[in-house]
Amino acid sequence: MPAALLHNQHYHPVRKAMAKDSTESAEDRLIARYFRPLAKHPGALDLVDDAAVVTPPAGCDLVLKTDGVIAGVHFFPTDPPDTIGRKALRMNLSDLAAKGATPLGFLMSVALPAGIDEAWIAGFAAGIGADAELYGCPLLGGDTDRTPGPTSVSVAAFGAVPHGKMVRRSTAKPGDRIVVTGSIGDAALGVLLRRERQLAERWHLDGAMADHLIQRYLLPQPRNALAAAVLQHAAASMDVSDGLAGDLAKLCRASGVAAEVDVAKVPLSDAARASLAAQPGLLDTVLTGGDDYEILLTLAPDQLAGFAAKARAAGIGVAEIGAVAAGQGARFMREGVAMTFARPSFSHF
Amino acid sequence: MPAALLHNQHYHPVRKAMAKDSTESAEDRLIARYFRPLAKHPGALDLVDDAAVVTPPAGCDLVLKTDGVIAGVHFFPTDPPDTIGRKALRMNLSDLAAKGATPLGFLMSVALPAGIDEAWIAGFAAGIGADAELYGCPLLGGDTDRTPGPTSVSVAAFGAVPHGKMVRRSTAKPGDRIVVTGSIGDAALGVLLRRERQLAERWHLDGAMADHLIQRYLLPQPRNALAAAVLQHAAASMDVSDGLAGDLAKLCRASGVAAEVDVAKVPLSDAARASLAAQPGLLDTVLTGGDDYEILLTLAPDQLAGFAAKARAAGIGVAEIGAVAAGQGARFMREGVAMTFARPSFSHF
Repeated sequence: MPAALLHNQHYHPVRKAMAKDSTESAEDRLIARYFRPLAKHPGALDLVDDAAVVTPPAGCDLVLKTDGVIAGVHFFPTDPPDTIGRKALRMNLSDLAAKGATPLGFLMSVALPAGIDEAWIAGFAAGIGADAELYGCPLLGGDTDRTPGPTSVSVAAFGAVPHGKMVRRSTAKPGDRIVVTGSIGDAALGVLLRRERQLAERWHLDGAMADHLIQRYLLPQPRNALAAAVLQHAAASMDVSDGLAGDLAKLCRASGVAAEVDVAKVPLSDAARASLAAQPGLLDTVLTGGDDYEILLTLAPDQLAGFAAKARAAGIGVAEIGAVAAGQGARFMREGVAMTFARPSFSHF
Repeated sequence: MPAALLHNQHYHPVRKAMAKDSTESAEDRLIARYFRPLAKHPGALDLVDDAAVVTPPAGCDLVLKTDGVIAGVHFFPTDPPDTIGRKALRMNLSDLAAKGATPLGFLMSVALPAGIDEAWIAGFAAGIGADAELYGCPLLGGDTDRTPGPTSVSVAAFGAVPHGKMVRRSTAKPGDRIVVTGSIGDAALGVLLRRERQLAERWHLDGAMADHLIQRYLLPQPRNALAAAVLQHAAASMDVSDGLAGDLAKLCRASGVAAEVDVAKVPLSDAARASLAAQPGLLDTVLTGGDDYEILLTLAPDQLAGFAAKARAAGIGVAEIGAVAAGQGARFMREGVAMTFARPSFSHF
């Protein structure tokens, strides 16, 4: 990292004293204790070199993605530390999955406020380490800084696809069927419950249902198990992160096509369905709230059965929700009427 | 990006109104206006897909690095916006240079507080765009977030080296000569001047000398022009970012060797030399302050002339400052006595 302006502002004499010798800083020590054990890939060079080195698979293109989370913006400071790093990684894994890419590894930048204790860091590191194993996406390098601001985690993830085969947003064709994996809207409802647990009562949710929705916010389930199926069957694909309505509109804009979705076919969890039954106005939240980390894809009609079979084999639900047509715009039809949304997708600005 | 917790917290109705149509968010618009023009590489897909795609050069390994800057920690909020992005990129380019790697491109995560105006963003984007051209390192993708904290910029850069040839820190051999490029300590002195311009008088610096030091802090000069020479001649190499003393200690630790440096041979700019003459105690700052972004390398004695010739041809100074020996620890010898440092390298913790 670069040296800081205010050389001693964030300097902890106690932690400095933890250093093994006078030339090993407490920052080196922190990295050695919590992050080096995660960096098992030989190309990570035990995190003691300037950079990592990886031999890309022959005949492949690299797929590159960066995304991150900031405390108070994308997660609650009181969220379990292990879920925060996992979520930051999974958000990126979800993009790789939607592009049909196999993960190769990731870099991680972490900015920590002075008040964070080592138990938090240990929990954070354990979570991200577990996911690096689970998804076969090793930590290759990183950057650890103190910040006067909120905790933030930025991940840059890399994957591989056969040369020329990355599945894009811009290649949907009129006549394609529109498919989405898993269920939509859970995380957006989960955030509301995380902020105000009493909503569970208003939505007539039992504890398990409320927990399901909150868990879907805390820990996305990226569909990397379907990356090969996306590669084989999809015409166009993206991950749903900013809300189904806005994300489908983006796919349509990129492809120069229109889409019509039957809202009744949008896949919902039991908990989301119960919430909507109790408070129908939540439909807007479900369709535009985002944080879904499902795959939204279009495919030629003759590819649908093959994709669905692979999804079934992987234990992942798929729902055909509509069709691509010539024209522009994504229409969400409900009882024969196109819905209007206050704000079809999340924007920071 | 993921959706935010507090859906409307950072929502700007005015900017939203700038969006071309109801499904294009103001965030999309901001990216389109300021960052898309920089993303000229075809693999960036105009920043409208989930991920970028790049075909790696045949027979090469990928070199991967992430580093970043946070306002108030690594730069002053009043620094010119064009230098902030450039510096974030150049810090990473410097690591690629030290590893002997040719840049392939970068991803960038930017977190902006609500108070930042569009002129700042325009200046920031112009600076990083100019450097992307200058160093042949295209912007491939990014992530733009609002933050309640300080402005921060994180870059993940990728380069290529011939397979198996990345130059490491861990391969220095007893008998190697130690070489450093450019000049050491300028940026560390520049930060002090940036905070307290009156120091120029105490250090007997004229305006040009003071400006030189401040400029070296604002805009590092990574030695990418020497990457091929490093690859050809170096035994071990790293970039000097956390201070020469601490960084050489790290290289020695990684290589399992000792080093002895003749402090009188450490290359100094005229401005640094003048400052030291006026205030000899600044030597500690020069050797441990960091932010140098020079290359520190060791090479077999018979490689020195070849490396020096290439550096001369590139117009970059090189100085032989010492030698590698068996043992451990990096000694900085001054008039026959090993110096001791309060803190040999920068640490955030």
